[in-house]
Amino acid sequence: MTLPKAVEIREVGPRDGFQNEPERIDTDDKVRLINALASAGFRRIEVASFVRPDVIPQLSDGVDVLRRIEVPDDVRLMVLIPNSKGLDNALRVRETFHDAAIFVSASETHNRKNVNRTVADTMADNDVMAKRIVAEGLGCAAVIATSFGCPYEGKVDLDRVLGLAERFAEAGATEIGFGDTTGMANPAYAGEFFAAALERLPGVEVTAHFHNTRGQGLANAYAALQAGCTSFESSFGELGGCPVPPGSTGNIATEDLISMFHEMGVDTGIDLPAVISAAQEAQTVLGRKLTSHCLVAGPIDWHAN
Amino acid sequence: MTLPKAVEIREVGPRDGFQNEPERIDTDDKVRLINALASAGFRRIEVASFVRPDVIPQLSDGVDVLRRIEVPDDVRLMVLIPNSKGLDNALRVRETFHDAAIFVSASETHNRKNVNRTVADTMADNDVMAKRIVAEGLGCAAVIATSFGCPYEGKVDLDRVLGLAERFAEAGATEIGFGDTTGMANPAYAGEFFAAALERLPGVEVTAHFHNTRGQGLANAYAALQAGCTSFESSFGELGGCPVPPGSTGNIATEDLISMFHEMGVDTGIDLPAVISAAQEAQTVLGRKLTSHCLVAGPIDWHAN
Repeated sequence: MTLPKAVEIREVGPRDGFQNEPERIDTDDKVRLINALASAGFRRIEVASFVRPDVIPQLSDGVDVLRRIEVPDDVRLMVLIPNSKGLDNALRVRETFHDAAIFVSASETHNRKNVNRTVADTMADNDVMAKRIVAEGLGCAAVIATSFGCPYEGKVDLDRVLGLAERFAEAGATEIGFGDTTGMANPAYAGEFFAAALERLPGVEVTAHFHNTRGQGLANAYAALQAGCTSFESSFGELGGCPVPPGSTGNIATEDLISMFHEMGVDTGIDLPAVISAAQEAQTVLGRKLTSHCLVAGPIDWHAN
Repeated sequence: MTLPKAVEIREVGPRDGFQNEPERIDTDDKVRLINALASAGFRRIEVASFVRPDVIPQLSDGVDVLRRIEVPDDVRLMVLIPNSKGLDNALRVRETFHDAAIFVSASETHNRKNVNRTVADTMADNDVMAKRIVAEGLGCAAVIATSFGCPYEGKVDLDRVLGLAERFAEAGATEIGFGDTTGMANPAYAGEFFAAALERLPGVEVTAHFHNTRGQGLANAYAALQAGCTSFESSFGELGGCPVPPGSTGNIATEDLISMFHEMGVDTGIDLPAVISAAQEAQTVLGRKLTSHCLVAGPIDWHAN
């Protein structure tokens, strides 16, 4: 089996990770950590969310963060757009980022619980938002949550998920991220899923966003890679994600994902020790141990003696 | 890709796991936990080691444990045999177990550090021990440590590892376990490795023993499964293993491995909630949180609403 030679990893810790931190993180600390991640080689970072500040106070300094970070010109910064009002606010500072992500849950129940609307209503809004994002010359990415299963509804039909993806693509999204929101994917299904997604979505960047809820996150990433997926999202220090069931881990850890890819000869363009340093710094900022494995074990040293 | 329909999992926590616990575990607790594991459906359990009691005091009650556990007749109990003296002691209670495991490290340096002998000397002894084990009517299993890489020597040649395996098989071993002692395997290599091992060792049971040192343990297990491997070892609660580098996790967690297999439709014959209960009981006995994911997240409930 021939694996892809290289992949792109978007670091989502500064948005998806920090969002779940109960203690407010200083803007200075956020800026320093994002700058460190850019220095480590990430060319895609999710930095902010234009959600209402009273809903997620942790991310209310998003515009400050976007304005103050100093990253190389070739780094693409992504922001999450929850609704048209959020898009209005984002477009007021459109020069501060490159890609806007809109989203829906593939499961009706999860979508209602998450954004209090039907999937149909959410998609109608997403169509309009996608066109506005594209018209502004920004990259439009779409995220489909609960793509591999829903904690309320159980199995989510593959055709339904890919149908939503096609609609996003028609509206102008050039990247579709498939989220395993509560860690229900398994590697056999992940492999089938990404083979089907890549076939059904020609010309669209297909992104895998796995969680490590039951420890299978990297196995799922390996299966997606085998199927030809070359775009991944992960979070340094294994920060954040959706801690459902309560207490479980969320996102897969960036440093563990990079370690696996590099050990297989798959290039990421990212300096693993520098990511581990950034995760160590995040531990200091947050005042607690983070759960990634490479944070403890470090990269493999093949020349030890 | 067609996956095997069923696998065998040997639970190694009572030996490989407990061995690494610094606080002495009561014999009563060990017996209760092993009985619970047998009730959960394991048909292979590694229970004891005939190592010198002063070297590993934690396992010095091995004969008591073997005599006091009450497990169904079809459960095969394995003991680890470090040397001829250990085999002498084991054979005095040969009616208490079914399989004896002998071992070597594929890496010369690791073997010297682990047992203070050359690989050649260890293998000469292993030849003799294998013949004695077989002559007693016991099952003879062999374990090759550092099969996927050595923390001292780096890469370990595949041919060297499989050569050792063939020698074990010639001496009478009917099962060869390949240990990723310090978590240096990656899924691409694990897939290649098990494809080669299964081809080179016809009629021998080929067993995968992965560690989760850098979070890739289940990805490696998935790759081995894809290659046709149907025999695995793991430890409930993610107990034990070789914590090198210091602080890292060791064995893959049995409950996470079972969750992955069951979600893919691969039968294990084991009751996942019962394994999670046993791991919870181990947490109580050890007085600390264990690190498996399913211990927190539980099995996936596809019928939740």
